Amino acid sequence: MPTSTRARLVDAAFSLFEEHGFTETTVDEITARAGTGRTTFFRHFRGKEDVVFPDHDLLLPRVEARLATATATTRDVALREAARIVLDHYLEEGATARARYRLTRTVPALRDREDASAQRYLRLFRQQISTWMRDEPDGHLRAELLAAAVITAHNHVLRRWLREETDDVDAAFDTALTRALAETPPSAPVTSTVVVHTGNPDVEQVLREVRAALT
Amino acid sequence: MPTSTRARLVDAAFSLFEEHGFTETTVDEITARAGTGRTTFFRHFRGKEDVVFPDHDLLLPRVEARLATATATTRDVALREAARIVLDHYLEEGATARARYRLTRTVPALRDREDASAQRYLRLFRQQISTWMRDEPDGHLRAELLAAAVITAHNHVLRRWLREETDDVDAAFDTALTRALAETPPSAPVTSTVVVHTGNPDVEQVLREVRAALT
Repeated sequence: MPTSTRARLVDAAFSLFEEHGFTETTVDEITARAGTGRTTFFRHFRGKEDVVFPDHDLLLPRVEARLATATATTRDVALREAARIVLDHYLEEGATARARYRLTRTVPALRDREDASAQRYLRLFRQQISTWMRDEPDGHLRAELLAAAVITAHNHVLRRWLREETDDVDAAFDTALTRALAETPPSAPVTSTVVVHTGNPDVEQVLREVRAALT
Repeated sequence: MPTSTRARLVDAAFSLFEEHGFTETTVDEITARAGTGRTTFFRHFRGKEDVVFPDHDLLLPRVEARLATATATTRDVALREAARIVLDHYLEEGATARARYRLTRTVPALRDREDASAQRYLRLFRQQISTWMRDEPDGHLRAELLAAAVITAHNHVLRRWLREETDDVDAAFDTALTRALAETPPSAPVTSTVVVHTGNPDVEQVLREVRAALT
């Protein structure tokens, strides 16, 4: 499979960043190693920083499109799948994503830019969730909490994968999203959601507590 | 009550920022209006940007100290009170806090710096909560979710107050923190925590569902 020019530039840049440091590496060194010219480089990237990051301008609209297909009743699967789009992008990048992680840990300007990107995803999720919860009590607050939970769960799993701390990223993602979504269950105006956290084996006692809570 | 030199510098700076813009205002103009010299200015602030922000280096240790007094069983009140320390600081600032909010909305560099400060509080809460949840299943994930929920709830109320959208900031804070804390209830190894969300008036049906779920 032929490697795209863009991918060759990214590979060349990351290997130079790891060898000589981000600050020390120049665009000319990157193009020399990739075997392209400066014009080609600037057709793909605005500058050296751009090479480091995923193309969020392509990724964000895909996430937005997935969220936009959902309604209040289908929201949980939409939130899972939308977050998964982002995670999958990093998994497909593989070694590049891990090299970026090492780099952003050591260059504050890159870390700040990464934090700013995370804010864009948070805002996107919050805006979409707000449209689903607009008419519910504390809808805007709950939308913010749910968006924060989904992004936090996603980032938790992504970070563990980047650090090579997880063997089963699919299971970790499922667990994390289940935790995040359980925190702000959809409003259920007729059916009931009862969440019981118990280590108490005495079912009758728990049922008495539930009855007391309901009556 | 005599106004402190620091407070006079802050007042002078904010009135100039609002009249002429942040970028256009110089340190010399600020000191001239405050009736002090440059040396005095630089005894209080490292530069023009520093005048804009609350003194997080004083505020963060107070928050940390409050969190450090708590244990897993007293965590909820500690989280409430720690978040409240930050909110109270902004409430005491009053008009200055609202002027800062208008300013950071319009100057991207200031907004980025504010986002970076928010990350410091998030990290502080996360680290402390992690020590309480370390040995629980998914403890690190849950600590991240809870920290994100507390910070999100705090910021939600603060933002509403800064925009003058809330008449009763105390009630808004209580509601928001209750929502945030309800999302990640403390683990209860022996006793039971029962959270019932229901619009169903048929208590017996709810109890049948709970029994089925428990057995």
